[in-house]
Amino acid sequence: MNDTERFEAWEKKLSAYSYAMTLHGLDGNNAPVQGRKYRESMAVILASEMFEIEHDETILPVLERLSAQDDDPVLKQRAQLRLNRMKQSLSVRKEDYEQYRKVLAESIEAWLKYKPAADWKSYAPYLQDLVQAYRALQKPRLQEGQKLYDLLLDDHEKGWDTVRYDAFFKEIRTCAVSLLEQIRTKDQIDDSFLHQYYPADKQRAFMPQILKYMGFSEEWGRISESEHPLTTPVTAGDIRFTTKYREHDVSAAILSSVHEIGHAWFGHQIDPAYEGTILARAMSAGLHESQSRLCENHLGRSTAFWQYNLPLLQEVFPAELAGITPETFCRALNRTEATLVRTQADELTYPLHIMIRYEIEKMMFSDDPDILHLDEVWNQMYHEYLGLEVPDAQSGILQDMHWPYAYFGYFPTYALGSAFAAQFNAAMRKDINVDDLLREGRTEEIFAWLKEHVQHWGAFLSTDEIIRRACGEDFSPRFWTEYITKKYTELYRL
Amino acid sequence: MNDTERFEAWEKKLSAYSYAMTLHGLDGNNAPVQGRKYRESMAVILASEMFEIEHDETILPVLERLSAQDDDPVLKQRAQLRLNRMKQSLSVRKEDYEQYRKVLAESIEAWLKYKPAADWKSYAPYLQDLVQAYRALQKPRLQEGQKLYDLLLDDHEKGWDTVRYDAFFKEIRTCAVSLLEQIRTKDQIDDSFLHQYYPADKQRAFMPQILKYMGFSEEWGRISESEHPLTTPVTAGDIRFTTKYREHDVSAAILSSVHEIGHAWFGHQIDPAYEGTILARAMSAGLHESQSRLCENHLGRSTAFWQYNLPLLQEVFPAELAGITPETFCRALNRTEATLVRTQADELTYPLHIMIRYEIEKMMFSDDPDILHLDEVWNQMYHEYLGLEVPDAQSGILQDMHWPYAYFGYFPTYALGSAFAAQFNAAMRKDINVDDLLREGRTEEIFAWLKEHVQHWGAFLSTDEIIRRACGEDFSPRFWTEYITKKYTELYRL
Repeated sequence: MNDTERFEAWEKKLSAYSYAMTLHGLDGNNAPVQGRKYRESMAVILASEMFEIEHDETILPVLERLSAQDDDPVLKQRAQLRLNRMKQSLSVRKEDYEQYRKVLAESIEAWLKYKPAADWKSYAPYLQDLVQAYRALQKPRLQEGQKLYDLLLDDHEKGWDTVRYDAFFKEIRTCAVSLLEQIRTKDQIDDSFLHQYYPADKQRAFMPQILKYMGFSEEWGRISESEHPLTTPVTAGDIRFTTKYREHDVSAAILSSVHEIGHAWFGHQIDPAYEGTILARAMSAGLHESQSRLCENHLGRSTAFWQYNLPLLQEVFPAELAGITPETFCRALNRTEATLVRTQADELTYPLHIMIRYEIEKMMFSDDPDILHLDEVWNQMYHEYLGLEVPDAQSGILQDMHWPYAYFGYFPTYALGSAFAAQFNAAMRKDINVDDLLREGRTEEIFAWLKEHVQHWGAFLSTDEIIRRACGEDFSPRFWTEYITKKYTELYRL
Repeated sequence: MNDTERFEAWEKKLSAYSYAMTLHGLDGNNAPVQGRKYRESMAVILASEMFEIEHDETILPVLERLSAQDDDPVLKQRAQLRLNRMKQSLSVRKEDYEQYRKVLAESIEAWLKYKPAADWKSYAPYLQDLVQAYRALQKPRLQEGQKLYDLLLDDHEKGWDTVRYDAFFKEIRTCAVSLLEQIRTKDQIDDSFLHQYYPADKQRAFMPQILKYMGFSEEWGRISESEHPLTTPVTAGDIRFTTKYREHDVSAAILSSVHEIGHAWFGHQIDPAYEGTILARAMSAGLHESQSRLCENHLGRSTAFWQYNLPLLQEVFPAELAGITPETFCRALNRTEATLVRTQADELTYPLHIMIRYEIEKMMFSDDPDILHLDEVWNQMYHEYLGLEVPDAQSGILQDMHWPYAYFGYFPTYALGSAFAAQFNAAMRKDINVDDLLREGRTEEIFAWLKEHVQHWGAFLSTDEIIRRACGEDFSPRFWTEYITKKYTELYRL
């Protein structure tokens, strides 16, 4: 076998293991409790088999040669991404990894126990151990002079570090805080009609309409229900996503599904030539999130979207939505109010939640972290950023699964996703009349634009490069600040 | 590592692959069509990885030593079963296997195409090729003087060959044919009330009652829907089964679920010490089927079962079932009538369907098979055994997936299952008052008896040995003939 054949056979095998691990994850959501322990032991064995293959050092020289060639740019990119990943994981020490896995399992178990009890004091020592084990694990990967948190940020969003994020968040924060201050003095929007009793079964019966409108097809995807909506792109022809019906919020399941369908389209529209390769995914977390945020906010929260869909929703809920216009409906959807829980935040306050996590993560990975007292920092920041008093740790620092599960450095990509979305949206609206298409139910042209300019690239191009090509310029947060300023100025007549 | 440790590590790894393949199968039922091709390519890679491990010849001497020791009978049995399996598959030639897989895929595709068209002439050549490839594949496994079909029968039911089956079927046939002749002259049972319109949603809402009554718990199992009901025992704590609602048969989903729950209990009640080993399954297909047939026929088709459940079903269908007594209901459930399709056959005619398949399989694997004309044999046998004219191949020889999928030698175990069930049922009724328990809804004592006498053994004991211990004597078909004669003599007042 030549280099290319060896590489392809090896990558294909890895894909088969990765596929099986995905099935483990999908099925685990549905599996009965008594089978859990055995299931996990089986997943561990399979993961360790996969680990062996992924760390087969005999493939290293092959990857190096293919990364250095210039004849086949797709193959080059595949080899480079695999090589980077392999080098990183080869630098990890086995004893550090085992210690980390042990501490991680303890942290998850403790969080599941102490979150409902709102008991930060009992949980905090587990987080302390976890951060320590994570630092030890990642330390060998650090380059000369590099800060650990910068490494973690880069893992989730290539090319981003604290310097770049600090500048980004400063612009976002200035804009959001100023708008919120102005809004505080204005009449608030009444959204009470959204919060009447909307039986889940009726909402469920309406969902096929939204799926159809968003071009989502049973031919290549499935929807089910779960507590926390999420999308699992098994492969381009098989995308699973979940939704959650809230009986006192008629828009929740719709907007959350529109968000997940944004992710789903990304998985579905990656170049089929990349199937089974490392390119068959988004280049970065922020880029993936940009597609869901674009769908949720720039499509799903627009008047044009509801000009088409509201009359249909009114057929299901004639009494509850009597006399509501698309304009009124849309105003209510975009109402802003500072709240404690990130996942329920509106578009304007959302990035402030992210900034709080970002600031706390910087502390967590500083030279001398005081993890046990982070709850006080959390509460103080919620006061400062959002003007709220946090009543307890359950709705405060314990609300999120990211830290207990060691997803450090991930949060900031949520804010980036919104900013990328605003920039893509601005570019798209230069090319096509998005509002007309939404009003007329011709969304296929929107998804065709997203495919051509963003999604089909998979991980072949960097996120920066995709933005540059799609938008004709580098990334800039001003697209978000301009969009959000215009939107809220109009909404609240500032 | 010593022998035991090597064996256990090897078997555990195999279990992890087998688990992943099970997940592939479970998930495949639900996955969208566009992902199918890639999914299959991933399953093939994983299966071939598993094949490599399963055929690692360096483990052979370990298996031989452990099979020969006498200190640990459980370990001995595990090693022996694995050794047999390995020897069998090592004797297979790679080129024969590849040819077989190719021909099998073609056969399945052709059957899916020609069954709806009722086109036997076009399908038959594929079956001919398949039988030929299968013969070539299995030939190296034959012992001196052994006939191929005897080998296939033994694969599915250890210790059974054509001599034993011929004798068995002779007794069954004599009994069934004689009863059917007598019944033909009597007044037929009116079961038309079962075939009114029973909306699937209402049936679905009643199903939790049946699950509860049968002791099935969400803690260790899940029910879903599929065209052909089946049970997948993922592991003792995780059993999946499916059902199918028929809107013009109120009993179909209930009895089919009671059947599948019989399988489910078997999977759930195997000794937990066997989890992850080759012992964590039924010793034979007939034994597994005996537990589902016992539940379906000896429990689900009994008056006592309906004395408890009919009043509850009448709450859901008060008009449709007005004035029906448990006795009337049960009589209707047990009505017998010769029909063309095996899966819809009643308890009395069912074994005749099986005998037809058995006789045809014997021809198929004879020295000089005339496969192209088997449809004529089929039609003639349906006339002879069941007095029916077969209108076309779709409801005739093409009705079953077993042959196109190369499940040769499997059919007879369906009839054995019924006969084993009758013998277990007779033994159980000596120990506990099954009818009282059914009437009072105390089914847990029934499943405890089945666990103690049949299910907890897994594949540690042979099927013959399990019957001997549970029933105090060797297997005999007279338990079925006596049971069925008594039942139908009473039902039709013969």
